[in-house]
Amino acid sequence: MPTNPVIALLTDFGLEDPFVGIMRGVIAKLAPQTRIIDITHAIPQGDIQRAAVQLWMARPYFPSGTVFLTVVDPGVGTARKAIITRDDKYTYIGPDNGIFSYIADESSTAWELSNPKYQLAQSSATFHGRDIFAPAAAHAAIGVPAADFGLPVGDIIRLQKPNLQIHSDRIIGETIYVDHFGNLLTSLGKFIKSSEQGYKFEPWLAVNDEFTNGFEIQTARATLLLPDGVILNWVETFAEIPDGDCGILVGSTGLIEIAALNQSAHELTNLSLGDPVTLFF
Amino acid sequence: MPTNPVIALLTDFGLEDPFVGIMRGVIAKLAPQTRIIDITHAIPQGDIQRAAVQLWMARPYFPSGTVFLTVVDPGVGTARKAIITRDDKYTYIGPDNGIFSYIADESSTAWELSNPKYQLAQSSATFHGRDIFAPAAAHAAIGVPAADFGLPVGDIIRLQKPNLQIHSDRIIGETIYVDHFGNLLTSLGKFIKSSEQGYKFEPWLAVNDEFTNGFEIQTARATLLLPDGVILNWVETFAEIPDGDCGILVGSTGLIEIAALNQSAHELTNLSLGDPVTLFF
Amino acid sequence: MPTNPVIALLTDFGLEDPFVGIMRGVIAKLAPQTRIIDITHAIPQGDIQRAAVQLWMARPYFPSGTVFLTVVDPGVGTARKAIITRDDKYTYIGPDNGIFSYIADESSTAWELSNPKYQLAQSSATFHGRDIFAPAAAHAAIGVPAADFGLPVGDIIRLQKPNLQIHSDRIIGETIYVDHFGNLLTSLGKFIKSSEQGYKFEPWLAVNDEFTNGFEIQTARATLLLPDGVILNWVETFAEIPDGDCGILVGSTGLIEIAALNQSAHELTNLSLGDPVTLFF
Repeated sequence: MPTNPVIALLTDFGLEDPFVGIMRGVIAKLAPQTRIIDITHAIPQGDIQRAAVQLWMARPYFPSGTVFLTVVDPGVGTARKAIITRDDKYTYIGPDNGIFSYIADESSTAWELSNPKYQLAQSSATFHGRDIFAPAAAHAAIGVPAADFGLPVGDIIRLQKPNLQIHSDRIIGETIYVDHFGNLLTSLGKFIKSSEQGYKFEPWLAVNDEFTNGFEIQTARATLLLPDGVILNWVETFAEIPDGDCGILVGSTGLIEIAALNQSAHELTNLSLGDPVTLFF
Repeated sequence: MPTNPVIALLTDFGLEDPFVGIMRGVIAKLAPQTRIIDITHAIPQGDIQRAAVQLWMARPYFPSGTVFLTVVDPGVGTARKAIITRDDKYTYIGPDNGIFSYIADESSTAWELSNPKYQLAQSSATFHGRDIFAPAAAHAAIGVPAADFGLPVGDIIRLQKPNLQIHSDRIIGETIYVDHFGNLLTSLGKFIKSSEQGYKFEPWLAVNDEFTNGFEIQTARATLLLPDGVILNWVETFAEIPDGDCGILVGSTGLIEIAALNQSAHELTNLSLGDPVTLFF
Repeated sequence: MPTNPVIALLTDFGLEDPFVGIMRGVIAKLAPQTRIIDITHAIPQGDIQRAAVQLWMARPYFPSGTVFLTVVDPGVGTARKAIITRDDKYTYIGPDNGIFSYIADESSTAWELSNPKYQLAQSSATFHGRDIFAPAAAHAAIGVPAADFGLPVGDIIRLQKPNLQIHSDRIIGETIYVDHFGNLLTSLGKFIKSSEQGYKFEPWLAVNDEFTNGFEIQTARATLLLPDGVILNWVETFAEIPDGDCGILVGSTGLIEIAALNQSAHELTNLSLGDPVTLFF
């Protein structure tokens, strides 16, 4: 266990209310030695899919032993379970509503957060972030084993994975995320640079056996077809995109992004999340 | 004194400017061992009442020894006093403008922050958060006694308390706060669950002697009357509220909230802060 | 080297995405003993000048040894250099695009961040904040000398300094910054209070030799002329400004600000950044 374990917070609570500060207060009381890092609190209310993607994006950059405390919980107070799950590096705490879809593999075990010993004395029906999840994160960070929180949960709830269909000359995917700058992440990837003009494609989602191991592509002639027939060219950096146009590049996640130069590609393309895109190469 | 005392920040400075970072820098310089936790910096400019409510909401969840540093200060640079006050668990630092109304009891002693030893060398007329309040919080956190900051202040300024009138069949209150999700907190409370269908009512504000000790209510027939004649039913969780409707439930503060399911009750009811509401039971 | 060195963050990443949290995760992994303080993440996309002013405003209030990590980087992925520079108290890390204009003097040495030893293993073309700048800040904070990061850079890029023309009866400047409250900072300053009605003027930017040492001014008759002919009076605090009017006062930076009482001077005056203003005294 690390000396100063990290707890990483991801919620849809916003920053106008005292809610995030209260969760931090609860943690500071129970586990003063922890370091708390915000991933974001600006998830749109109840947008589990966006939270799941952000957790997947952020996770690899956190220290081993980090406890991810993710509370996007439209079902608070209902029968939906509060859970803890783990992998070999990290611990995850949140509602069982699909928020861990992108990071938990099929064999993950989860436990219910039902042990009152690790909850605040008076639990409300509306703020489990404060009463159940934050205390669980504090206790997990200081070494309480996952199995002490409650009984094992069978299958956890999973969101439908984004589309990723691979063919010998093209990959079909969809838009999955828009960032602050208006860049549109797609499900196409991951791509890892392997030569001046080449990338190794390594599927980040389960795909048909033939393509599990991926393959090399050349970027010189790679293009992305949008649903309205527009075709975008592959670039290496934002600066190569002509003013007012969009291009595609491999973003910081290894997935292909639709981007523009100092403009919002989201506004320029008018694409919605879930719209199909096809990479030809 | 705790080893790593917490300083909790609550301001109307917003996050676009360097102001909050500067206060953190001042604290890090004077008291590097402190842990700083934001309650919020998104109080609307000069909204002392909202800041006072948030401080009351957040306080119980912070570790003993926490210094609350609250700067919503429309009178900065005028004759309004800068003060420090305490109770048996916490220290409070801010302008004497009513911001401590909900947390300081009538017998609280306060001291003026006038000792130049605990201020920055060159104090501005516009940023006491940096020059007076942050240094005071840092010094208080590392053990400077409140009385060392200056002379005792007589009565501190108090906002008018919200309405809470208790009768044998109904409680009259008002709306006092809207949160990020559009939930409307009322002054009706506190309610503590005591049985499947029952709550203990314990007044959180001073009320007439007859009802000081509160009483039990049954929720099955409890309803809230809004000023426009609409009647809302009592529910236990958000999920019980019919789509497009509002209901009332006991929120995380123990006060009754007007809420909707994945919608803003504030928008649905069109209520303003201070509007009267009556709980029949 | 301080025991718990501070890393101060200043970016245009916003708080909706996981980007800032990822940078914090990278730092927590490489240098767990550091303390991270946000200056702001709300710089408008690519607004290097605003970032440069904020860095200048915040710097004096941070502990000696602080590493300022500033990432407003519209040229990410292009040939623009990533650099580290230092002065006798602080270290600065960011893109070489003018962001250090207000804090680095002409003789500052900078080094390129090119040593792969201090970068993440797989660097993206779009998120140098994560791959290059955050790891550099972590390593600098724990004692890696600036010269170990790469070769010295000749002149760093500098923005044009704001206008500051001094005459015996007036000082001509311009508006340089608008804050959250709508106060307009001008380039006129610094002014340090020296008597009841007097201030010492000490130029914060290089000016003609005659006035390098500044002079005393009396505020009773000092006024500010705006481009539209409006004349504003000097006040000592916000509270002296008549309702609905604007006034000028010495702000927390020592520069003259155009301000209003509980209103936005920016909206009332309709001034833009870079508009000329003249102080008569």
